[in-house]
Amino acid sequence: MPDFAEPLSRLIEELRRLPGIGQKSAQRVAFSVLRSSREDAERLAKALMDVKDKLGMCNICNNISDGEQCNICRNPNRDQSVICVVEEPPNIWPIESTRTFEGLYHILHGSISPLRGIGPEQLRIKSLVERMHSGEVKEVILATNPTVEGEATAAYISILLKPLGLLVTRIAMGIPVGSDLEYADEVTMSKSLENRRQL
Amino acid sequence: MPDFAEPLSRLIEELRRLPGIGQKSAQRVAFSVLRSSREDAERLAKALMDVKDKLGMCNICNNISDGEQCNICRNPNRDQSVICVVEEPPNIWPIESTRTFEGLYHILHGSISPLRGIGPEQLRIKSLVERMHSGEVKEVILATNPTVEGEATAAYISILLKPLGLLVTRIAMGIPVGSDLEYADEVTMSKSLENRRQL
Repeated sequence: MPDFAEPLSRLIEELRRLPGIGQKSAQRVAFSVLRSSREDAERLAKALMDVKDKLGMCNICNNISDGEQCNICRNPNRDQSVICVVEEPPNIWPIESTRTFEGLYHILHGSISPLRGIGPEQLRIKSLVERMHSGEVKEVILATNPTVEGEATAAYISILLKPLGLLVTRIAMGIPVGSDLEYADEVTMSKSLENRRQL
Repeated sequence: MPDFAEPLSRLIEELRRLPGIGQKSAQRVAFSVLRSSREDAERLAKALMDVKDKLGMCNICNNISDGEQCNICRNPNRDQSVICVVEEPPNIWPIESTRTFEGLYHILHGSISPLRGIGPEQLRIKSLVERMHSGEVKEVILATNPTVEGEATAAYISILLKPLGLLVTRIAMGIPVGSDLEYADEVTMSKSLENRRQL
């Protein structure tokens, strides 16, 4: 480690705690901050603190929100009859970027994981069931991750919701579009075969 | 772009201004900030501002410094008879990490570039020449970048310093250690041939 001036090495150290930022990128970022104007650094520092100070959780879907309700729940144009269930707030982004899903979300903030001692009661499952009481919801799409924990969570919720007479669906697993069969792992490949559709 | 809560999308926007940080990594970092404790965010924000508020330039070598003189110039164990000239402060790091250079540095803060209207008078060349007056300096190593501008700068300084009876050297250019000749560009390859040494 080069012998930096103390404030610079401290900034590099702090930046390295962030995900995906190694020593080299931390140095590069620290240097660009050093070269930028004081106003630029101040805006970044303020944006950091605002995220901590101004954001909370949507009281309907548990998404991140700057108010009582998130942008999506507040939007009257969203289809109130479909709820897509995901594990974490960032899981919403890929779904939103398809621009094909018009419904609402429900964020569980985790998945059932006996190994890490996380049971259904630690997740926001109770509030999901409560959302069904309005009678407006026709379909619940389970979009938890395609992992052991995500599957277990989807199975658990499905057992819970089916008696309510709702359509409960699971997102499809298979070969990613644009990929090459040669590089598909065996689990994905067998899912893809299992879920084959008649043409 | 997903519809983030305002403070989150502002942080992502600010992070994206940093070098080497694209939309995805900005989102990842913004999210980790959201999940981290308020103290963590505060430490990062403070580190950012400290870099702007507490750092200046070493009045000997123009390196970044938290005092009148930088850590290297302050260190009495460094060899006062050799000065390594570089373009920018980060250029010091790879040299320091070799742990083989014990001398001092001089940072020019740029290179001669007629195209961008940067002449020798905009660089810290005058103060370099003044450092020779002590009579302690025996060698000046020109470690400006192996670019047209860096070469021009090295040539200019060399002409300036040689009459003072100093040893003026230039770092070697050639094939990087551990690389494959197959991927060497032609300019590097011809430099490498030109600078071949007898074994």
